[in-house]
Amino acid sequence: MSVTAATGFSAAGIAAGLKSADAEGHAPRDVALVLNHGPDKHAAAVFTTNRVAAAPVLWSQQAITDGRADAVVLNSGGANACTGAPGFADTHQTAEVVAEKLQATGADVSAGDVLVCSTGLIGVRLDMPALLTGIDAAVGQLEPAETAGHRAAQAIMTTDSVMKVSTATGADFTIGGMAKGAGMLAPGMATMLSVLTTDAVIAQPDLDAALREAVRLSFNRADSDGCMSTNDTVIAMASGAHPEADPSGVDLSEFQAALNQVCQDLATQLIADAEGAHHEIAISTINAATEEQAETAGRSVARSNLFKTAIFGQDPNWGRILSAVGTTDVDFDPSTIDVSVNGVWICRAGGIGDDRDLVDLSGRHVKVVIDLKAGAAEATILTNDLTHDYVHENSAYSS
Amino acid sequence: MSVTAATGFSAAGIAAGLKSADAEGHAPRDVALVLNHGPDKHAAAVFTTNRVAAAPVLWSQQAITDGRADAVVLNSGGANACTGAPGFADTHQTAEVVAEKLQATGADVSAGDVLVCSTGLIGVRLDMPALLTGIDAAVGQLEPAETAGHRAAQAIMTTDSVMKVSTATGADFTIGGMAKGAGMLAPGMATMLSVLTTDAVIAQPDLDAALREAVRLSFNRADSDGCMSTNDTVIAMASGAHPEADPSGVDLSEFQAALNQVCQDLATQLIADAEGAHHEIAISTINAATEEQAETAGRSVARSNLFKTAIFGQDPNWGRILSAVGTTDVDFDPSTIDVSVNGVWICRAGGIGDDRDLVDLSGRHVKVVIDLKAGAAEATILTNDLTHDYVHENSAYSS
Repeated sequence: MSVTAATGFSAAGIAAGLKSADAEGHAPRDVALVLNHGPDKHAAAVFTTNRVAAAPVLWSQQAITDGRADAVVLNSGGANACTGAPGFADTHQTAEVVAEKLQATGADVSAGDVLVCSTGLIGVRLDMPALLTGIDAAVGQLEPAETAGHRAAQAIMTTDSVMKVSTATGADFTIGGMAKGAGMLAPGMATMLSVLTTDAVIAQPDLDAALREAVRLSFNRADSDGCMSTNDTVIAMASGAHPEADPSGVDLSEFQAALNQVCQDLATQLIADAEGAHHEIAISTINAATEEQAETAGRSVARSNLFKTAIFGQDPNWGRILSAVGTTDVDFDPSTIDVSVNGVWICRAGGIGDDRDLVDLSGRHVKVVIDLKAGAAEATILTNDLTHDYVHENSAYSS
Repeated sequence: MSVTAATGFSAAGIAAGLKSADAEGHAPRDVALVLNHGPDKHAAAVFTTNRVAAAPVLWSQQAITDGRADAVVLNSGGANACTGAPGFADTHQTAEVVAEKLQATGADVSAGDVLVCSTGLIGVRLDMPALLTGIDAAVGQLEPAETAGHRAAQAIMTTDSVMKVSTATGADFTIGGMAKGAGMLAPGMATMLSVLTTDAVIAQPDLDAALREAVRLSFNRADSDGCMSTNDTVIAMASGAHPEADPSGVDLSEFQAALNQVCQDLATQLIADAEGAHHEIAISTINAATEEQAETAGRSVARSNLFKTAIFGQDPNWGRILSAVGTTDVDFDPSTIDVSVNGVWICRAGGIGDDRDLVDLSGRHVKVVIDLKAGAAEATILTNDLTHDYVHENSAYSS
């Protein structure tokens, strides 16, 4: 299930010709549309903090300020980033055409409430005739069916090898979501995009707060190669259309837990599908002074090329882990820190611990635990190893 | 010429058996000794800021506090990092033995003024019997000859393919230096170490200030893979022994310029010899609000794996450069920034500029210029590309 799991949403995913045909000559899907039929049109969004933000990000940041979104249109096959004023005009036109076509079907949609997401090459204008034709086709194929949600999830894929979808349900709500991108593993092409839909009755400020918390705990802790895209966007929309919805609103803690689960599931799928990766690595920092410090320590390790190449080489090189933690300002004592890899505490008290030959790194999953012994907070960062395939994917790729 | 270029210094480089024999069965040099014969024993040092500092760093930080150093002993074949109290005791013993052996030759040396540097694997104790025997041999082979300086430079090599030495002269002084390490390209093994010697008459506070400024402009702007070692150390010693030295001291600006030149030359040699690199990349940020902001922008690009793999693939991917600058907080307007690669301004006003096909990346040297249009300051960061060989070197390497 995907963005159509919740009541009140329809979706489409079609091939507009923005992406090249595959080896068998099939045109891949590259335009997705998600429509909120209401009654509520509450929406919230989180965007990249990269100051070189793509045109669709600049547009959507403005469009979401009123807390309402009627529809989201997404395209792969072009990021529309670093394209200047003409690129922004392209995004504007995209939203206008989506609104116009949807209005023609009787939907209550205004261009200023159409969010736009793009992913693909940076520094290239979109093929607007193809995109606008594609929007026309997508509007005609909007459906609330599960298959329609899956087609939308497929249409936003770039280097993804599989679509990423997830759902969760509560007493009186359903949450569905789709995502694409592999951290930032394949740049220009690998923006992280996600659209989350729910039929919960939830006030917009509550939806906004819940989305920010869920993103903080999930997508923001998936750090494949430390590079931040110009296009990253996560959007949540609430229709309030659940048949058994309590008009006074969902239980917020139940909703938060379900949203966290969907986002965490999608983030895990992104890391699992990271281009070129041979290992999925979870770095848990425990007994930190604060949750923020736990995150900082784990992120520093996740961004160490030396650590990431060591894991690729199946080398439990704890010195590289300590060295990466040592570059941060988090509270810890280098003479008491412990580190385990796949359950073996190979570093104890900042020095040589248990036999490193006991560590088995032949599998795809790697679990690193860093015990800072400085408090009671913890956080887990997800990342990948650095492989020959990563270098190949990101150097051979012609932009 | 090397650390023996300046009057008042002798050096040695010998094979103690800390490193394995090479393919032809020759034992490589792995212990270096540099002795300051005075009359001045002024010294200054800059160390890694990694909080997981190796035992020799902790020792030398204490030893240098009085501004005096009589000798420096350096070993490859082991970093003596993450080795706890026993590792610190090993370093202490090393300094004691160096002092004792030198005193036996009539030299004025105290253990508390013997600096120690180590480089090699993290988390492994040194072979102390071999090291102490090696120190004995090194003391017996101390010479002021150029060849002795070169032997010392060879003894500190790890993954280096060539020794790095440099000299500069002023009206009444000579500066000589040696260095090892390739940024942090080969971890555990690739600590950056450098010893600089001069026969200048210079007060210790002036030597200290000159060293910090030279390191800031050179070694600290060579950022091969963004990883910071546990052992990095740069040491400067001044003997005041130049035959034509003015007792009132050198011209400080002339000395600073010469020291900058030697450090810049050594840093350039380090980047040129970075393990696994196919390109040497100079990233110049111009028209920045401050020199610090210029450095921040360049360093962000130098640390982008996406940029580094693109250069390996000979792809002038300016979108990845803009994206990296966009993650910083430096002053710039995404709609006015220009970027050139090897002389071609492929990004103008934040968008598509001149024809990217004009950029020739087939050679080893790459020059990136980022024009922030926010001021008048500039800085250049040196780095390397990210290659299959880097992944191979750092994953296959057994630690």
